[in-house]
Amino acid sequence: MTATMMRASVLLGIGDLTVQERAVPEPGPGEVLVRIGSVGVCGSDIHYYDRGRIGSYVVNHPLVLGHEAGGEVAAVGAGVTTLAPGQRVSVEPGVPCRSCPQCLGGRYNLCPHVRFFATPPYDGAFCEYVVMPEAFVHAVPDNVSDDAAGLIEPLSVAVWACRRGRVAPGSRVLVTGAGPIGLVCVQAALAFGAAEVAVSDVNPHRLALAGKLGARAIDVSATSLAAAGVEPDVLLECSGNARATTDAIATVARAGHVVLIGMGGDELAIPLPYVQDHELVLTGAFRYANTWPTAISLVASGRVDLDVLVTGHYGLDEVEQALTAARRDPTTVKAMVRPGS
Amino acid sequence: MTATMMRASVLLGIGDLTVQERAVPEPGPGEVLVRIGSVGVCGSDIHYYDRGRIGSYVVNHPLVLGHEAGGEVAAVGAGVTTLAPGQRVSVEPGVPCRSCPQCLGGRYNLCPHVRFFATPPYDGAFCEYVVMPEAFVHAVPDNVSDDAAGLIEPLSVAVWACRRGRVAPGSRVLVTGAGPIGLVCVQAALAFGAAEVAVSDVNPHRLALAGKLGARAIDVSATSLAAAGVEPDVLLECSGNARATTDAIATVARAGHVVLIGMGGDELAIPLPYVQDHELVLTGAFRYANTWPTAISLVASGRVDLDVLVTGHYGLDEVEQALTAARRDPTTVKAMVRPGS
Amino acid sequence: MTATMMRASVLLGIGDLTVQERAVPEPGPGEVLVRIGSVGVCGSDIHYYDRGRIGSYVVNHPLVLGHEAGGEVAAVGAGVTTLAPGQRVSVEPGVPCRSCPQCLGGRYNLCPHVRFFATPPYDGAFCEYVVMPEAFVHAVPDNVSDDAAGLIEPLSVAVWACRRGRVAPGSRVLVTGAGPIGLVCVQAALAFGAAEVAVSDVNPHRLALAGKLGARAIDVSATSLAAAGVEPDVLLECSGNARATTDAIATVARAGHVVLIGMGGDELAIPLPYVQDHELVLTGAFRYANTWPTAISLVASGRVDLDVLVTGHYGLDEVEQALTAARRDPTTVKAMVRPGS
Amino acid sequence: MTATMMRASVLLGIGDLTVQERAVPEPGPGEVLVRIGSVGVCGSDIHYYDRGRIGSYVVNHPLVLGHEAGGEVAAVGAGVTTLAPGQRVSVEPGVPCRSCPQCLGGRYNLCPHVRFFATPPYDGAFCEYVVMPEAFVHAVPDNVSDDAAGLIEPLSVAVWACRRGRVAPGSRVLVTGAGPIGLVCVQAALAFGAAEVAVSDVNPHRLALAGKLGARAIDVSATSLAAAGVEPDVLLECSGNARATTDAIATVARAGHVVLIGMGGDELAIPLPYVQDHELVLTGAFRYANTWPTAISLVASGRVDLDVLVTGHYGLDEVEQALTAARRDPTTVKAMVRPGS
Repeated sequence: MTATMMRASVLLGIGDLTVQERAVPEPGPGEVLVRIGSVGVCGSDIHYYDRGRIGSYVVNHPLVLGHEAGGEVAAVGAGVTTLAPGQRVSVEPGVPCRSCPQCLGGRYNLCPHVRFFATPPYDGAFCEYVVMPEAFVHAVPDNVSDDAAGLIEPLSVAVWACRRGRVAPGSRVLVTGAGPIGLVCVQAALAFGAAEVAVSDVNPHRLALAGKLGARAIDVSATSLAAAGVEPDVLLECSGNARATTDAIATVARAGHVVLIGMGGDELAIPLPYVQDHELVLTGAFRYANTWPTAISLVASGRVDLDVLVTGHYGLDEVEQALTAARRDPTTVKAMVRPGS
Repeated sequence: MTATMMRASVLLGIGDLTVQERAVPEPGPGEVLVRIGSVGVCGSDIHYYDRGRIGSYVVNHPLVLGHEAGGEVAAVGAGVTTLAPGQRVSVEPGVPCRSCPQCLGGRYNLCPHVRFFATPPYDGAFCEYVVMPEAFVHAVPDNVSDDAAGLIEPLSVAVWACRRGRVAPGSRVLVTGAGPIGLVCVQAALAFGAAEVAVSDVNPHRLALAGKLGARAIDVSATSLAAAGVEPDVLLECSGNARATTDAIATVARAGHVVLIGMGGDELAIPLPYVQDHELVLTGAFRYANTWPTAISLVASGRVDLDVLVTGHYGLDEVEQALTAARRDPTTVKAMVRPGS
Repeated sequence: MTATMMRASVLLGIGDLTVQERAVPEPGPGEVLVRIGSVGVCGSDIHYYDRGRIGSYVVNHPLVLGHEAGGEVAAVGAGVTTLAPGQRVSVEPGVPCRSCPQCLGGRYNLCPHVRFFATPPYDGAFCEYVVMPEAFVHAVPDNVSDDAAGLIEPLSVAVWACRRGRVAPGSRVLVTGAGPIGLVCVQAALAFGAAEVAVSDVNPHRLALAGKLGARAIDVSATSLAAAGVEPDVLLECSGNARATTDAIATVARAGHVVLIGMGGDELAIPLPYVQDHELVLTGAFRYANTWPTAISLVASGRVDLDVLVTGHYGLDEVEQALTAARRDPTTVKAMVRPGS
Repeated sequence: MTATMMRASVLLGIGDLTVQERAVPEPGPGEVLVRIGSVGVCGSDIHYYDRGRIGSYVVNHPLVLGHEAGGEVAAVGAGVTTLAPGQRVSVEPGVPCRSCPQCLGGRYNLCPHVRFFATPPYDGAFCEYVVMPEAFVHAVPDNVSDDAAGLIEPLSVAVWACRRGRVAPGSRVLVTGAGPIGLVCVQAALAFGAAEVAVSDVNPHRLALAGKLGARAIDVSATSLAAAGVEPDVLLECSGNARATTDAIATVARAGHVVLIGMGGDELAIPLPYVQDHELVLTGAFRYANTWPTAISLVASGRVDLDVLVTGHYGLDEVEQALTAARRDPTTVKAMVRPGS
C-alpha cells in the first residue's frame, strides 16, 4: 500500500535546500505513480542550486530538483494497460503537449509547451514519488539497476546526439569533453558502431575512464586536436567551451556532422569557409525524443555500462552533498540521490 | 567544320585582361567539344579580376575566367553516345576525380581533386571552345536560351541549396541577399513548392525584381527582420554579411534549416542557445552535385525564368566591361559574355 | 447562435440511408464545433453504402458517412486559442491517440487507436455539425472555396503519397489510375516540381481532365505502358488493379519509388528480380500525417485546383444520389454533399 | 618480384572446370595488382558451375569464378598513392563506370555498365593475381585474416542490407534464412546495435551457429513465425523462399522495413493491405556501395567474426570440391579457395 505523505528535497533559493513533507500525488486516468529508487545529479541541478536560474528559467518558487529518475511502479490510474505495480521503470522527465506541430511531427522535444522535471515551475524527482503519464514511464528488465534506470536519461541525451549526428557503423567520432554527458556519448557512439571514438578533456580522471570505456583519450592540456591528427566524421561537442568548439569544428571531415550539446555562451564562432567548403552539418541536440526503448536496450544488452559512471550515493537529506560532490572531488562523475535510503 | 584556332579572354594579373589566340582543344575519348554561346559573369570572376585571388586560390599564371557556360556541341570524341554535333547544351564546369570516397559517395562537389573552370590553375569559358567529359555536358531543349543554358550554373547553386535546406511544398523560406544567387534561390524555392518566400536586401532594384519573381521583399535598411515578422523554416543566406546572417538565424523556426551560401569573413557568430533549443540545422552549400537535369527541367517547364536576370551582353573584347558592370550600374543583375559575338 | 438540433444522413444498412435529427454536439475543452459547408464523396463511402463493410470494418450500427469536410467554426471549447467562430476551416478527419509510439514518432497516421470519420464505429461528416480537437481543424484563407476546403482531404492523400515517394523537382512520375485520387496525385506531383507526369487510365473523360491538368495521358486500352516508353522515378499507384500494378512496377527507373495507394486484392505480385536489381523502394500510403498546412498552401497559392474536380452538388436529402453519381455517369469525378443546402 | 605466369581455375561449361596457365596481368595507371590469398565460394559461383547461367548472364566463354577475395598488393601502377606492395587487402569485385547518373549519384551498385568479377564476360578471382583500380582495393589491418579479407564481400552485402533496412540501435530484426548471407546479416544487425535478432531456418547446424552468434534461432520446420511471436522492425530476407517471404512480411511492425536479399522466383506475392496499412517499406539490396571501410572496421574491432563461418579450405586444383562442399555436407557454411596453396 502506498503512503499518503512523502519527503521531498526542495530548493528554496540559491544554495538553500530543505526536506519537506508533501502529499503523495495520485495518478489520474492514464497516469502512473512511481516510487523513486535513484536519481542522478545533473549539471542543470547544480546550476539552479548555485545560481537560481538557467537563462530565462528562474527559480521563483520552491522547486524540487532532479530529472534522471528510476524506480518502480507504486500504483496506476484508470486505463493504464502496459504497467502494473511492482514493475521496475525509468522515467522520461518531460511531458509534451502532444498537439502542437512539433509534437505531431515527432519532434516532441521541441514542444514549446513541454512540462519538464526540475525546470521552473515544474517539480522534479528528488522526492519519494512522482506521477507521470503512462507513455513516459518505461519498463526496464532486471539486469538494469536502479541507478542505471535513472541514468537512462543522460544516455538518452547521447542516443539523441548520435542520431542527430548520424553516427553509424564505421563512423569516426570525436567527443569534446569527458564529463558525464561526454562519457555516455563515448559509450553510445561505440554502441552505434563507431569505428573510432576519440575524446578530449584536461581532467586525467575522466580521460582515464574514457579510455577504459574504449575511447582514445586526448589530453588537450598537452596536445592540440590538430596535432593529435583527428579527422572525425562526427563531432559530439560536450565541453561548452567556445574556443575549443571552434577549433574542434575545423577538424571535421568533409560532409561531417557537428552536434552542439554542451552549453556555452550566447554566441559561438564557427569557421565559415571551412564549414562551407566541407559542407559540414551543424546542429543542436535539445533533450531527446523517442529514445527510451533504445537506450534501455543498449544497457540491457551490455553494450553500455551506466553503473561504472556512479561515484557516490546520497539520501534525501544529503542532496546538498550530492550537488556539490563534483566541485569537492575531481574524481566525481555521477552522484546519485536515493530518496528511499 | 570546327576551326583550329580560337580567341580567349585571358586574365594576366589584377585588372589586366587581354584577348589571345589559342588552339581549339581536341576532344579525347569520352569528351565533347563545346562551342560557347553565352557565359554568365559571376562574383568570383570579378573577385579574381579585382584581387587576383580568392582565399588560397591565386592567379599565378594567365587564366581564362568564366564558368557559367551554354553553347552547342561542336564535335565529340570516341565513345560519346549521348551527344552529337549541333546539340545545344549547358556545361557543368567542374570535373571531379570520380574515384575518391566523396565522389563514390555521390558528393562529387566535395572531391578534393576537382578541376573547376576559372579556378587556378584551370581555365574557364570566356573563350570560343571548351572540352569536357560527356557526363558534364547536358542537353537543353530549344525553349532554353543560350543565356539560360549558361545560367543553369547559378540555378544549380540554388537547387543544391534548396536540397540541402530541405525546401519542400509548404516551406516558409527567407532568402537574405537579392543578388544573382539570391534571385535564383527565390525562384528555386518557389519551384520547390515553398508556401512563402521572403527576401531581404537594401538595393531597391533587386528587391523590386525579387518582388516581381514572387517573393515578399523586405528592405532591411528600413525595417528589421524581427520587425518584419518572418519565421522561416529555411534560411538561404546569400548576403555574406556576418551580422545580418547572425540576426537572420535567430528568426528561424524550430527544426529549421540554415544554408550558408554567401561568402563572408573567416568566422561567423551563431546564436548558440537559440540554435540548440530550436535544433536548427546549419550547413554550407558548396557548388552542387547531380543538379543539372533538375535545373534544366525547371527552366524548360517555365517554373524558373533565367532570362529575366540578364541585364547586358558583352563580346570577348568587352569582358572588362562585363566584369565591372555591376559596380558601374546598380541595376545590373547578370552580365553575359558571348564569345562568338 | 448555434442550433441545438441538426440533421444527419445515416447509413442504416446496405443501400439504406435516412436523414435523422440529432443533437448538435458540444465542444469540450480544446475542441471546436464546425458547421459543415461541403463534404466530398469518397470511394470508401460508396463501398460502405454498397457492401456494408471494408475489410474488417463492418457497419453494425447506424453510421454517418463522409470524411472530406470543409466548413466554418461555429463555437469553440475552453482553451482553444487558434480558432474563433466564423473562421473558415478544413477538417482533418482522424484523431489519433497521441501517446503510442507511432504518434510520438510523428507517424500518427499509423496509430492503432485512431478514431476516424465514417469508419465504424465513428460517425463522419454528412451532417450539419461535427466536433473535433483544435489541432485537427485547420484555417483556410478566403480564396479556398468550401468545396476545396473539403477536398484538402484527398489532396492530403496525394501530398502524403508524394512525400513517401520522394517526388521532388525534376522527378518523372507515373500515376496509374485517373480517378479522384489519381487526379490529385497528378496535381500534387506537379506542385512538388515533377518534370514530367504521365497518367494511365481507360476512361477518356478522366484522361482528358488529367491532360488538362498538365499530365501526359496514356490510354492503356490502346497502348501498353511499355510501348508508351515511360520510365518513371516514382510510381503513384492509384488504380488498385493488380496486373496493371505489376506491369507498372516493371517500368520504374533504378532506385525509383513505388507508392501503393489504390486498394486491390489481398496479395500483389511484384516482379522480384526487377525490384532487387533496380533497388526499387515500394511502400504504402495510409492516410497522411502533418499534411494539412502544406495541402492548404498548394491550393491557396494556385498550384493545385480542387474546384475543377467537382462535378455535382447534393443536399443531405440527396446523399444516395451523391453516392451513386459515379456509377450513373462516367463523367463524374467528385460529388460534393452540402449539408446546409 | 612478381611472376609472369599464373594459374587460374577456369569454368569451361556446366560442371567442367580446369586449371590453366595465364599471363599475370599488369597494373596500368591507377591500378593495383593483387596476389590473391583467399576467396570465398558464393552461391552464384555454384549456380554458374551447376547451370551455366544466372538469369540473362550466360557462360558462353571460359570464365574464372570467385568474387570474395582477399590478398596482398603485389605491384602498383603509375599514380597509385594509397597502397604499396606487401599491403594486405580486400578486393571490392565490381568496377562501375563512374560517369553515369547512378554512379555520380553515389549508387554505383546500380551502374548499368559495371564490370563485376565472375559475372560473364568478366573473370573473377579463382586465380593467383588480379588487377583492380586503386579505389576498389582496400587495406586491412593485421588482425583481419586472409579468409576474413575475402569474406568482407558477403559482409558488405549484409552491411548494405542493414543500411537499406535502416537497422539502428534498438531495432528488432528478423533474418529469414541462416545460410552464409543470413549469418553475416545476423552479425551485421547486431553490430548495427539491434536490440534483438531472430533468425529462421530449418537446418539445425546453421540455426545452432546463428544462436552462437547471438540470434534467437527459430526452427520453422517446428514452429511458424506467427507462433514464435516475432514482430520485427526490419526483415532481412535471405531465404529466397517465396511463401516464407510472404509470411514473414506479414509479421513486420508498423513503419517497418523489408529488404529482399535472397533470390527466388520471378514474382513475389506481397500481402498488399498489410503493407499499405502498416506502411511497410520494401526494397531490394543489390550488391553494395561504399561499404568496404565500414565492413573492415566491424571485423577489425571484433564486432563481427568472419573466420567462424569458414568450414573448409581448398587449393586451385580443388575448386570443384569447394563448389560442391555444401551439397555434400550440410554442416558446410563457407568454403574458401586459396590459390597459392
